[in-house]
Amino acid sequence: MTDLRPVPDAPATFEVDLDASWTVMGKPYGGYLLRLLAQAAARSGPEGGPDHPHPFAVSAHFLTSPDLGPATLTATRLRTGRRVATTRVDLSQGGALRAAGLLTTTATLPTADGAGPLLAAAVPPVLPDLADCPRSPVEPVPGVVVGHLAHVDLRLDPATTGHLTGAPSGTGAVAGWVRMAEGDQVSPLDLLVIADALPPVTFTLGVFGWAPTSELTVHVRAVPAPGWLRVVQRAHWVEDGWLDEECLVWDSTGRLVCEAHQLASYRA
Amino acid sequence: MTDLRPVPDAPATFEVDLDASWTVMGKPYGGYLLRLLAQAAARSGPEGGPDHPHPFAVSAHFLTSPDLGPATLTATRLRTGRRVATTRVDLSQGGALRAAGLLTTTATLPTADGAGPLLAAAVPPVLPDLADCPRSPVEPVPGVVVGHLAHVDLRLDPATTGHLTGAPSGTGAVAGWVRMAEGDQVSPLDLLVIADALPPVTFTLGVFGWAPTSELTVHVRAVPAPGWLRVVQRAHWVEDGWLDEECLVWDSTGRLVCEAHQLASYRA
Repeated sequence: MTDLRPVPDAPATFEVDLDASWTVMGKPYGGYLLRLLAQAAARSGPEGGPDHPHPFAVSAHFLTSPDLGPATLTATRLRTGRRVATTRVDLSQGGALRAAGLLTTTATLPTADGAGPLLAAAVPPVLPDLADCPRSPVEPVPGVVVGHLAHVDLRLDPATTGHLTGAPSGTGAVAGWVRMAEGDQVSPLDLLVIADALPPVTFTLGVFGWAPTSELTVHVRAVPAPGWLRVVQRAHWVEDGWLDEECLVWDSTGRLVCEAHQLASYRA
Repeated sequence: MTDLRPVPDAPATFEVDLDASWTVMGKPYGGYLLRLLAQAAARSGPEGGPDHPHPFAVSAHFLTSPDLGPATLTATRLRTGRRVATTRVDLSQGGALRAAGLLTTTATLPTADGAGPLLAAAVPPVLPDLADCPRSPVEPVPGVVVGHLAHVDLRLDPATTGHLTGAPSGTGAVAGWVRMAEGDQVSPLDLLVIADALPPVTFTLGVFGWAPTSELTVHVRAVPAPGWLRVVQRAHWVEDGWLDEECLVWDSTGRLVCEAHQLASYRA
């Protein structure tokens, strides 16, 4: 994980080194950057004041793709309430703004032992056994490195990955099992990484290549229970060089723990 | 419509009067505020520089509910690119920040006469004839005023509004026809208002009362063709006092023109 180093005498300002292990084809990917923004937001509160460490509704607009290496995070706490706090966080390099975030964070997130949902309309995908879902490799094609797949253990349902064997499904959806590589407990911050970890759904349409994120918003709905998570990523509409992607994540108890929506671009 | 008045000698700063006709139970509603933020963003570019007037991916975090009356919009253009621009806009009253926005706007939006979608996975709802869908009234219950329904002509499918007659559907979804009251051409800015104009889907669960928006992001995918739009609003998950709402809007040609996602709170 990338460390945030406070800048002396600059309140809520941090230096980070954008890490080569979190890149897709050499570029730091959106979920990793969003987690850095959330880490800065969590550390931007008033001294001794209430703490709101958990990402709850976090948005980032990506302006220009950052380079590897040093970057600066500047956090400005806009409001600290009882339940939630809202913080603006900028990520810049050499004075150029790379990503701008608005993050609502919370003191406590729901857990799986609540009273149960009033409505559970989003049903987790039916998946093959874990053993029948191969782990997505860090280097799917020689020379193409998807760095975050060293950190995220992603096991996609082969029925949704026909594009890997020359038979794209055409559905605009991929689904599978996921957890962090280091173990069984996915944290709320980890969900920000997972919410952007699946391949672009344009692959399922036979359109390969990078689909850079323009805007990404993640809602963390609960702390995941331990165990493998189920995840679906799908597009509603792909046209004119732009696609939306919805990523839904359920925990091992079947609770929806994360919903992400992004607008990304592609070249057909 | 509410006018933006430039503040002399303050760049990209505007005064507005939050209008009583755009309130729900006396509080200005989210879609109206988001449109004001987008209007300010569109007017924040460099003098003589490229213009990016259309909302494309626009996010707002609502900190505290504003009051009616004067408010100040402060826009800061973060980047002006060839295709898109990104702007930060704050809405404040008496020095207190009420809403913080990040808005990516564009010079040109797609129109309905393109090559057609690569993927159209979100299918518009099948609705009864317009004549069989009554217009949602501004004052559904004596003393309860939903002001924006004077501006937005909303015709919900009666099959989704059983809650109005004591028989909530339990589905977490409402659907119908919609356009602006003044006519047949819905603008991209109007879509921001429409994307938050439907009743809270908690009503369909028999939970009545205000569901204040915490975070709202709208993606405008195309300029709507003239004519009535079809709209669906639905929740994926309602639990622990929080719900998501997805609002999808299709134009008269069947193209998805707008997708909105919000996190809101409710009291059961």
